[in-house]
Amino acid sequence: MVKKEKITFDKNKKENFSEWYSEIIKKAELGDMRYNIKGFIVFQPWSVLVMEKMYQLMEEELQLKGHKPYWYPVVIPEKNFLMEKNHVKGFAPEVFWVTETGAGEKLEEKLALRPTSETAFYQMFSIWIRSYKDLPFKTYQRAQVFRHETKATKPFIRSREFHWIETHNAFDSKENALKQAKEDMDTTKKVLLEKFCVPFIFFKRPEWDKFPGAESTFASDTLMPDGKVLQLPSTHIISQEFTKAFNVKYLDKNGKENYCWTTCYGPAISRIFAAVISIHGDNKGLIFPFNIAPLQAIIIPIFNEKNREKVLKEAEKIEKELRAKKIRTETDLQEKTMGEKFYFWEMKGVPFRIELGEKEINEKKATVFRRDTGKKTKESIGKLAEFILKEGEKQSNALKEKAEKEFMQGISEADSIEKARKELEKGKIVKTGFCSVSMDSAECAEKIEKELNASVRGTKFSEKEKAKGKCIACGKKAQEIVYIAKSY
Amino acid sequence: MVKKEKITFDKNKKENFSEWYSEIIKKAELGDMRYNIKGFIVFQPWSVLVMEKMYQLMEEELQLKGHKPYWYPVVIPEKNFLMEKNHVKGFAPEVFWVTETGAGEKLEEKLALRPTSETAFYQMFSIWIRSYKDLPFKTYQRAQVFRHETKATKPFIRSREFHWIETHNAFDSKENALKQAKEDMDTTKKVLLEKFCVPFIFFKRPEWDKFPGAESTFASDTLMPDGKVLQLPSTHIISQEFTKAFNVKYLDKNGKENYCWTTCYGPAISRIFAAVISIHGDNKGLIFPFNIAPLQAIIIPIFNEKNREKVLKEAEKIEKELRAKKIRTETDLQEKTMGEKFYFWEMKGVPFRIELGEKEINEKKATVFRRDTGKKTKESIGKLAEFILKEGEKQSNALKEKAEKEFMQGISEADSIEKARKELEKGKIVKTGFCSVSMDSAECAEKIEKELNASVRGTKFSEKEKAKGKCIACGKKAQEIVYIAKSY
Repeated sequence: MVKKEKITFDKNKKENFSEWYSEIIKKAELGDMRYNIKGFIVFQPWSVLVMEKMYQLMEEELQLKGHKPYWYPVVIPEKNFLMEKNHVKGFAPEVFWVTETGAGEKLEEKLALRPTSETAFYQMFSIWIRSYKDLPFKTYQRAQVFRHETKATKPFIRSREFHWIETHNAFDSKENALKQAKEDMDTTKKVLLEKFCVPFIFFKRPEWDKFPGAESTFASDTLMPDGKVLQLPSTHIISQEFTKAFNVKYLDKNGKENYCWTTCYGPAISRIFAAVISIHGDNKGLIFPFNIAPLQAIIIPIFNEKNREKVLKEAEKIEKELRAKKIRTETDLQEKTMGEKFYFWEMKGVPFRIELGEKEINEKKATVFRRDTGKKTKESIGKLAEFILKEGEKQSNALKEKAEKEFMQGISEADSIEKARKELEKGKIVKTGFCSVSMDSAECAEKIEKELNASVRGTKFSEKEKAKGKCIACGKKAQEIVYIAKSY
Repeated sequence: MVKKEKITFDKNKKENFSEWYSEIIKKAELGDMRYNIKGFIVFQPWSVLVMEKMYQLMEEELQLKGHKPYWYPVVIPEKNFLMEKNHVKGFAPEVFWVTETGAGEKLEEKLALRPTSETAFYQMFSIWIRSYKDLPFKTYQRAQVFRHETKATKPFIRSREFHWIETHNAFDSKENALKQAKEDMDTTKKVLLEKFCVPFIFFKRPEWDKFPGAESTFASDTLMPDGKVLQLPSTHIISQEFTKAFNVKYLDKNGKENYCWTTCYGPAISRIFAAVISIHGDNKGLIFPFNIAPLQAIIIPIFNEKNREKVLKEAEKIEKELRAKKIRTETDLQEKTMGEKFYFWEMKGVPFRIELGEKEINEKKATVFRRDTGKKTKESIGKLAEFILKEGEKQSNALKEKAEKEFMQGISEADSIEKARKELEKGKIVKTGFCSVSMDSAECAEKIEKELNASVRGTKFSEKEKAKGKCIACGKKAQEIVYIAKSY
């Protein structure tokens, strides 16, 4: 009954991240690329369970901050889509269009599969928002979005369909819109860093790299094991051109009509999932932070014909106790060797393994293995739930600290193109002087792109870093400190 | 600051259900029909919060029964779609097709917005399922589906996009497939009846009314206040033609290849929501069962300038205590009269209102109003959470019993077309003799359809009812007892 395949997962994450990534997706059954439409994958249970938890934690935080949940149609009429010209320019090349029904009956108007939903939300905002009393108007939806990417797709990282949350919000002033952007950064910290243990830096993106239709774009980047950055949630202050196009106005306290200021924030759950597995995993496979692990504890009963009943009964009792404390627990009753079970659940990233045999039962102490540290301890059987909840918090903190440390070590300074190239090749983010982040310096950015195959991610938002030295690209006096990185 | 509009909701649900339904959707802000694509609506927070709870309860039950969650692409390639001819015939007229991208670049192959996902799941089943050890293979996904309905749409009841769960499952025998169908009926009972308080009867649908591609269809019907039935979850044993078309096979214990038997089950959450609001609501508005209410308790602080601080402090304390016990609670601090607040939250269907003034604080007893019974009681402030949890269970049971009673009273017997017509006009489901539910009797069904503008819903699945008398349509000896009803 024993499976013939190799029982250990063993891929060097640091040396060959790309291979590690593809292999773990297959081996742990996270997603299947064999669905027969290019760029679309089937998300499998082990990833869906995690992403559902991620949705839940993100939505709780958003609701706590006053965002109300909506479900908008997946399709957006072409006329909505065409209303804001920068937005059209940015998204039109990537839109999937629904044009017909049934046996080829043409629709009167083409419908876009939403690539993002400003043009759907704003239409309704123009109906719903009447007065300053309606503001702030804070919404969100859990949804899939669709982009006909021309770049190579990579599961969870860049697909033609991804699972995200988008918030859309209206305010009575630009100041309040900016406050919202800052609140979004706080949300990102509370959820991505504190719950998913994924570190990031929020950058103000340069003028040439803004969201189509935005006045300002703030985007978080994390660092992947191969030294490339991955963009995580971004928040945007939308240009008033947009609310003007959609006629989103309110009456102020003096009875005067004004256009709203709007923001949007887009945590792409399926992409954040890619960061979670890439950052925390190791050569043996996945490691999930305790909060979002699909299973938090796996019980491995160790028995022979004689003590089978005794051991299984105790395992069942422990499983029940752990579940009563809301610890997601299962008992592995498959017909496999102990070794196979150990390797399998290590590869799957379950935070805790409880080994339970007759000896453990007699001693009233089970062996608990912690996946991230690889440490085994003996824990009192009556207090396993308590131990795991406490140790789960420690696991989460340890993963966060480790990831933050690696992120900080992944940043190098450089004062020349040559030095920058070397650092980028070592898999570093490069911190350097740059002339400016206005459109005037787009040429310098192009030079970086061309010579280093890397992009200017922007200026750090949380602290104004004082410029010194020269622009790495043109040699003029630097006005800004920017971060340059290869990216997904 | 007081809104000028009429503060009470008052529509006669029994007398004019259609008007009641449209008005409560607007007034309670459940859905907005002003989105500019016909047949698509925007689901608003007050319904989304309920439907999210409904999803959660349904998914918990499915996971408990061994179904694993997946997320499939929203698009299905035309070639998948064309593989099973009955399925194509049934769904093709209603499919939305994605045919182009960007600025009009034609796709090589048309993609269907999924109207249901058998043809997506089975493609992957044929890859994943290898041996009897893989069976039963039980899956589900939470998803939206799209049907270009030609009938008039009605929010939540019949839309071109609806939110559902679909399970797809593979077995090694027809018997096991039938067992799954029975398990699905149990799931429907555990969730729809026990949690949402929505009664139903499961019918075996007549041959002429099966799911396209199914060998047998079992569907639940509930009774709406206007006497029409609404189809709720259905479960289907799929014809093996389907697994043959998709090559879904397994090796049995003897090493022999066999085609799988499959089933699917489709609880449409947005449609069940329509039943929830229609069945439980009354002339004052919505009534939500405790389990799924977006808010379970609303605190109305009653104060004047002098005791404002004292009352609000106590309200905050109570809110905190209730929330600590996971009771979804808010305090209404809007600048409205007490009457307006009372009517508003009654209309919104919040199960409990807690009235809290200085008198109540001094007496250490708050007034608790229960929405469904309209009864007010004084409850000890220190034990409010306890009371509400206990009373919430009672509320849920009361709603269930009331709904079940109304359903039972909604069924009449008839032994002639004339009698049936009268009963249908009174808003009843008619129970009657019928010649058979095989294709041989399709003509009798057509006669019913034509003369009574009603359809044969099938035979009751839970108990074999002994036929007596004659077929109501053709006068031959009845072989079956069937139920006839007008339907949505």
